Amino acid sequence: MPANTFGQIFRVTTYGESHGPAIGVHIDGVPPKLKISESDIQFQLNRRRPGQSSITTQRDEKDQAQILSGVFEGKTTGAPMMILIGNTSQRSQDYDDIKDLFRPGHADFTYHQKYGHRDYRGGGRSSGRETAARVAAGAVARKILTKQNINIIAYTRSIGPIDAENFDYSLIEKNKVRCPDPVAAEKMVQHIEEMQAKNDSAGGIIEAIVHGCPAGLGEPAFDKLHALLAHAVLSIGAVRGIEFGEGFAAARMKGSTHNDKFFIDGDQIRMMTNHAGGINGGISTGENIILRVAVKPTASISQKQQTVTTDKQNTVIEIDGRHDPCICPRIVPVVEAMIAITLVDSMMHHNAVSTILNDQ
Amino acid sequence: MPANTFGQIFRVTTYGESHGPAIGVHIDGVPPKLKISESDIQFQLNRRRPGQSSITTQRDEKDQAQILSGVFEGKTTGAPMMILIGNTSQRSQDYDDIKDLFRPGHADFTYHQKYGHRDYRGGGRSSGRETAARVAAGAVARKILTKQNINIIAYTRSIGPIDAENFDYSLIEKNKVRCPDPVAAEKMVQHIEEMQAKNDSAGGIIEAIVHGCPAGLGEPAFDKLHALLAHAVLSIGAVRGIEFGEGFAAARMKGSTHNDKFFIDGDQIRMMTNHAGGINGGISTGENIILRVAVKPTASISQKQQTVTTDKQNTVIEIDGRHDPCICPRIVPVVEAMIAITLVDSMMHHNAVSTILNDQ
Amino acid sequence: MPANTFGQIFRVTTYGESHGPAIGVHIDGVPPKLKISESDIQFQLNRRRPGQSSITTQRDEKDQAQILSGVFEGKTTGAPMMILIGNTSQRSQDYDDIKDLFRPGHADFTYHQKYGHRDYRGGGRSSGRETAARVAAGAVARKILTKQNINIIAYTRSIGPIDAENFDYSLIEKNKVRCPDPVAAEKMVQHIEEMQAKNDSAGGIIEAIVHGCPAGLGEPAFDKLHALLAHAVLSIGAVRGIEFGEGFAAARMKGSTHNDKFFIDGDQIRMMTNHAGGINGGISTGENIILRVAVKPTASISQKQQTVTTDKQNTVIEIDGRHDPCICPRIVPVVEAMIAITLVDSMMHHNAVSTILNDQ
Amino acid sequence: MPANTFGQIFRVTTYGESHGPAIGVHIDGVPPKLKISESDIQFQLNRRRPGQSSITTQRDEKDQAQILSGVFEGKTTGAPMMILIGNTSQRSQDYDDIKDLFRPGHADFTYHQKYGHRDYRGGGRSSGRETAARVAAGAVARKILTKQNINIIAYTRSIGPIDAENFDYSLIEKNKVRCPDPVAAEKMVQHIEEMQAKNDSAGGIIEAIVHGCPAGLGEPAFDKLHALLAHAVLSIGAVRGIEFGEGFAAARMKGSTHNDKFFIDGDQIRMMTNHAGGINGGISTGENIILRVAVKPTASISQKQQTVTTDKQNTVIEIDGRHDPCICPRIVPVVEAMIAITLVDSMMHHNAVSTILNDQ
Repeated sequence: MPANTFGQIFRVTTYGESHGPAIGVHIDGVPPKLKISESDIQFQLNRRRPGQSSITTQRDEKDQAQILSGVFEGKTTGAPMMILIGNTSQRSQDYDDIKDLFRPGHADFTYHQKYGHRDYRGGGRSSGRETAARVAAGAVARKILTKQNINIIAYTRSIGPIDAENFDYSLIEKNKVRCPDPVAAEKMVQHIEEMQAKNDSAGGIIEAIVHGCPAGLGEPAFDKLHALLAHAVLSIGAVRGIEFGEGFAAARMKGSTHNDKFFIDGDQIRMMTNHAGGINGGISTGENIILRVAVKPTASISQKQQTVTTDKQNTVIEIDGRHDPCICPRIVPVVEAMIAITLVDSMMHHNAVSTILNDQ
Repeated sequence: MPANTFGQIFRVTTYGESHGPAIGVHIDGVPPKLKISESDIQFQLNRRRPGQSSITTQRDEKDQAQILSGVFEGKTTGAPMMILIGNTSQRSQDYDDIKDLFRPGHADFTYHQKYGHRDYRGGGRSSGRETAARVAAGAVARKILTKQNINIIAYTRSIGPIDAENFDYSLIEKNKVRCPDPVAAEKMVQHIEEMQAKNDSAGGIIEAIVHGCPAGLGEPAFDKLHALLAHAVLSIGAVRGIEFGEGFAAARMKGSTHNDKFFIDGDQIRMMTNHAGGINGGISTGENIILRVAVKPTASISQKQQTVTTDKQNTVIEIDGRHDPCICPRIVPVVEAMIAITLVDSMMHHNAVSTILNDQ
Repeated sequence: MPANTFGQIFRVTTYGESHGPAIGVHIDGVPPKLKISESDIQFQLNRRRPGQSSITTQRDEKDQAQILSGVFEGKTTGAPMMILIGNTSQRSQDYDDIKDLFRPGHADFTYHQKYGHRDYRGGGRSSGRETAARVAAGAVARKILTKQNINIIAYTRSIGPIDAENFDYSLIEKNKVRCPDPVAAEKMVQHIEEMQAKNDSAGGIIEAIVHGCPAGLGEPAFDKLHALLAHAVLSIGAVRGIEFGEGFAAARMKGSTHNDKFFIDGDQIRMMTNHAGGINGGISTGENIILRVAVKPTASISQKQQTVTTDKQNTVIEIDGRHDPCICPRIVPVVEAMIAITLVDSMMHHNAVSTILNDQ
Repeated sequence: MPANTFGQIFRVTTYGESHGPAIGVHIDGVPPKLKISESDIQFQLNRRRPGQSSITTQRDEKDQAQILSGVFEGKTTGAPMMILIGNTSQRSQDYDDIKDLFRPGHADFTYHQKYGHRDYRGGGRSSGRETAARVAAGAVARKILTKQNINIIAYTRSIGPIDAENFDYSLIEKNKVRCPDPVAAEKMVQHIEEMQAKNDSAGGIIEAIVHGCPAGLGEPAFDKLHALLAHAVLSIGAVRGIEFGEGFAAARMKGSTHNDKFFIDGDQIRMMTNHAGGINGGISTGENIILRVAVKPTASISQKQQTVTTDKQNTVIEIDGRHDPCICPRIVPVVEAMIAITLVDSMMHHNAVSTILNDQ
């Protein structure tokens, strides 16, 4: 797989820089005759777009999706979909000052080392803006999953020191931090505002649950389902860790506790517990898939920080611009999108091999 | 990437079941003129092989590597290497009892769902035995990395409730659990022996450090270096989570603390801290790469456990056989192997694109 | 590789339908710091575009290339390039009549069978218009090859019954059929005009020569250089065959004649003949690469033809619209583009593996 | 795709050198529950093996296939199949003389240029012996195709100047050259014997026909079915060209003649002619797929030939050893195998995308 493509059969390929004319996504392997419209995509883009609340960046980017190919008379044709999202709210002059400096916690230095020069405007290709393209592709993937009754939800579980303690999923979209616990949500917003006031930033933990995923997805050896999902989710810039089911806590458990025992539920084989988080031997069990993702605090802060210039002088940087004091609320739909893309691709891989002889 | 291959240019493809005639690995993209011998491979295989201490499985499998192709007069030719490891210590009759049952915590159920039948002997393809093939490929990758002065070490950081507190890497291979803290190691062995006595098992945490990795490895968007490493490491059966640098702790930190500030060290750009664990924007910074891996407690335990039969009856299972009460000591070389394979492939990808115009 | 992507490291991914808003190409793996501008791309697009002479289609499509990403201050950044070409001269109403019919020699029937419905306007995704995107990507590839002193030329060798007999490559672009023999070119134009007058069409043979290709490109086994080039060139719609060096004539030759014998030319190893067409054992020899391509007569003709409807009734079709009576002149730059893309990708693959140990 | 793997979902990966301990093939993506035995594979290997008649090489290599993985109780499990074929009839000393010379028409020179050294024994990796591994994989693919009622036959159509004129496919395996015309076959054998007597060699043309291929296989843009088949077949060492349907003759035809017109045959849409050779727009039409392959005369001849040494001296070479005076009879099963592998992979790709929404 090349850098800018994810998936093998359902293939998502993004492009675009923060301050170029546009970003977007090429989606290959979309099955034909799927009903899809620009508004299906826009709905998800709106959940990720800047300027949606007082605690997100105040850039007012509309993130308007335009379908350039692959759809005819409201249905996919089997040809690749190209979705284009124009960049409209760039203020490139904000970045002139950092042209010859490396912002701590950003990709400025590593891109400079890798490529010898860089598009410094808003982080260029390394900007979180690239994830809008993923959300657009995820919207297509979700249309496919919905037809299979597979549903993905993600939400903020922690921000800084504050953890959700109650989980009413119907409330996730009702608060600014996308947290299923409204009391915790209130505290999270306060924490973010405090950080913002101090020109600082916060991180957090996102949890995601997949309902209705059939048993059998994922492949033995190297494409175990958690390996694929980890690849997908750790390709989101701010993510620093992932765990499935009990995750790191499993390291402290005994086998007799951690093993999920089977029982017969009507005519179905089920598990009494779901410590494994819905995946065993790298293949989905049919129980809910559960994962958690560590999100680092936003690197862009308006405090003075020590850094160096491209010609190797020590200096100090102070980043202006309009930044998210905590990226968690906006990363939720990105995590969902990456999970959706991974599951569709896994289903296609599974079908490819398993259906060919099913007339036996 | 298909299920049984990892890597794009340096490609590792494994095969074989626990109780078939052999397992092994096909390695494509090995650069020519690399000096390599079966003993280079055997050295790493011996670190993973069963029966190496009182707290690992007592199966006495020699895991003898045989190079069938790709090497001529002691050097690689550029042709693919095939390494074959015969299976010699199978006792398939141990598995007759579980033929129609699903072992909790194993892939028995998911393979059955995915494929409609399964090779039940020792877990078949889902057996941890497959990782011997990875270690063999990793030995080849490490020969390449050594020429670039890149060095990978991994070790047991925790087992059950016991954590290493001192880190003398020269002591890792001197104790049964591969822990850099000999005092903790002693307690870890005791803990494992206790679990073993109770027919139970323990999990743990493995930490890995890459020294000498140059800046520039990893690719933007979907093949960020932590995404690739996460894919690699989470493809190891017992792994349930991974984190880089501060990992999940980063979610609790402030941006002003987490950001690694730059300074000039002689004529080099360095970072004052390494909270990012050697990767920023998905690309290596030149600082040490640091990651931690959660290992679940071994699923095979000799206690009675509730389960079901393939024809959907509730029943009880009691697993016999020779199993590891804690897989951590033997998983250390597997983690190292997967990191080595990932880094070689990343270096090749980086070279492919960046060298083509370097005469400019 | 998925349907709409070509190449492994230098990856070209196209999109777009004949009568959608735009077509275009995503190019991944472009090396950084390559100087490139829209006019470099436009130059090649103009050689392929409709309406360039009296014997090509009279659609007046400007095929204006716009670079949306991957270039900063006139140089590539290492990020993927997105090139967009708007569709401006569509007359979709031309196609209403054929909505429920299958045009003989076109993809109408096979797309209908594969996808269950189709974008019938101008052939949709199956339109030759998609090759404009390839020519744009080829222009980027050619900039890279030029820096390596590799030069590709293609030309019309035959049209219908008329063959070129003299080969002055400086004259190729001086006539309407892109033939290096001006006398034959004259006859070819006449032949095409005759076909046009009869509402019929002509095919032809394109020959291509690569000068300056170093020895060593191509890979053993399945990615032999002729296999890659054949894949590339046979992915152009109207192509029905390909041959290298002596090609089909080799089947009639004796080994003693066909074998290219070696000799020392100064300090270089050369071959006395080049029957192999510059490739042996699937790897370039350093001699010129020579290949020929069979192009079928254009399927779109204005004669009445028997066909069937989508609901399985026999009927007669008469295609209107503006079509090329012979596609050869416009396919020349497409063949060059596909060769260029293949060679850049092969060089990258070769470098990836061979440079990693070259400090030995 | 890497050098030594073919296919995306049904993936065939070969290894091994002519004079190493073994060659073989790893097959990934084999659907589960397929009945297969070593004798199924052996049957096809016997059609390719050396020593089968007076006009093939007199090496007596048994080419015994051994299945090392992926099969349990006579059925595939979904795990990758590893098939190993031991090398038993090597006489490496035959090659000591050519160690420092480049054989004309062979890969000796190009491998030396690419890799800096080479396994000179019997051509090493570039030996035609590698195709035995392909035939083994093809045998597995054919088992799958047979279940779908798809049948592939290939045969010798020409050798040197002699062409088959009658086509009774039941006679193909009844003569030494695998020609469906027994009269021509007789002359072909004579021609080969004449060449052999003169220490020379002959080439020929192989034709292949696929019966029963459903409409819909192949993908738009770059993975058109003829592009995939051309890639597959041109990866066979001695092949110099390929054409589909009318092939190069199409270049001389008029559109009105070449277009295959549709008609209704019962309840099926059929074509009156099959000039396209069963593929239109890159996708199978449901008519027979027809292709022809140009095979060069064997490079190994026992005449004196001019060549050079690795240290750049002009010299003369005289190749001893046991060689095929014409490789056509033995290449027939290899062509069939590559077609079979391509079709299975195409079917899987088609199913993956088209079945996912078929409950709509």
